[in-house]
Amino acid sequence: MRIAILGTGDVGRALGKGLAGLGHEVKMGSRDPNNPKAKAWAAEAGPSVSVGDFANAARFAEMVVLATLWSGTENALRLAGQENLAGKVLIDATNPLTFTPGAPPALALGHTDSGGEQVQRWAPGALVVKAFNIVGNAHMVNPQFPGGPPDMFICGNDAGAKSAVTGILTGFGWNSIDIGSIEGSRLLEPLCILWVGYGMRTNSWNHAFKLLRK
Amino acid sequence: MRIAILGTGDVGRALGKGLAGLGHEVKMGSRDPNNPKAKAWAAEAGPSVSVGDFANAARFAEMVVLATLWSGTENALRLAGQENLAGKVLIDATNPLTFTPGAPPALALGHTDSGGEQVQRWAPGALVVKAFNIVGNAHMVNPQFPGGPPDMFICGNDAGAKSAVTGILTGFGWNSIDIGSIEGSRLLEPLCILWVGYGMRTNSWNHAFKLLRK
Repeated sequence: MRIAILGTGDVGRALGKGLAGLGHEVKMGSRDPNNPKAKAWAAEAGPSVSVGDFANAARFAEMVVLATLWSGTENALRLAGQENLAGKVLIDATNPLTFTPGAPPALALGHTDSGGEQVQRWAPGALVVKAFNIVGNAHMVNPQFPGGPPDMFICGNDAGAKSAVTGILTGFGWNSIDIGSIEGSRLLEPLCILWVGYGMRTNSWNHAFKLLRK
Repeated sequence: MRIAILGTGDVGRALGKGLAGLGHEVKMGSRDPNNPKAKAWAAEAGPSVSVGDFANAARFAEMVVLATLWSGTENALRLAGQENLAGKVLIDATNPLTFTPGAPPALALGHTDSGGEQVQRWAPGALVVKAFNIVGNAHMVNPQFPGGPPDMFICGNDAGAKSAVTGILTGFGWNSIDIGSIEGSRLLEPLCILWVGYGMRTNSWNHAFKLLRK
């Protein structure tokens, strides 16, 4: 499949490399098609990987991964172009984080709204699936934990889109749990803060959630 | 230790029985000291268990467990009496749930506030620790899951109080993870909704969270 990664940060690079490893063609999009970070990453990631601007990447893709900082998310989607996102699965790996000096990251919105819902409003034609937001980028692909595999909770309004994302999660070694519509982001984004808070309290970033079942 | 249970529902009865099983003296408090449900439960639960009104129970106790429906929580704390709660560990096992016919339970507040913080404001002298709110009452005591024990996330403003609650959780067979101040309830109450939602989607209520770590 042809997959676009919107964003050149740690999350985008980790997911892009993982998706290329699954045999997908990956194009990393950024504001500047000559973004040196993206080019260096692509040179290392192999021949199935390329770079472009947000619109190039989205136009190229059958599936799009949103991996931007929250502050740049609306603009990235605008630059990607509604016409290039319409009808496509859009994996929302973002969290609506605000950063205040001296304080832990916090959510910009919640309870009656969420980042996932906001992304769906910004890209109304896309089939948004929230995924990958509850774990750090180091464990997004091939997560190895005693007692694993961990569980990735996902949500979105389109069953087919969630099925496609589950396929990718399975390929990466995750168990996937569908929690319902994109409104479920109201539950998954606080889980990101729980994940981050545990890391800050323990100075350890090697953890992931699992729902024990019997 | 002498422990009061405020509330006669499933959660209060499960925790009361479990605490009596650990060797504690338990008094179950309700609005009506002759509450037949409480009396029947106490008769079955053994000689270390008694019943009373909310104030009796709180006065008797060294530690208090709040296990009320959200709609009755403020009133239960008022009837228990500030003077009977002051300086005592108050385990907040509630969730600020609202019920709408035909819809899943939802949180009455969140994001910038939480039930745990509201309980702390209603009982300002108590040492509130949020615990037991992320699992169903059937699994609160001696949780048995493949890959377990599961993790109970707790939060509160007093380290000594959290240490006391961790002791009880350990006695019940839980691993306990302290996530910080009572403000952490903003993260744990959405986790209750995630737990409930999974149950509703799968029609199965035998699940609990674990944080895999390495």
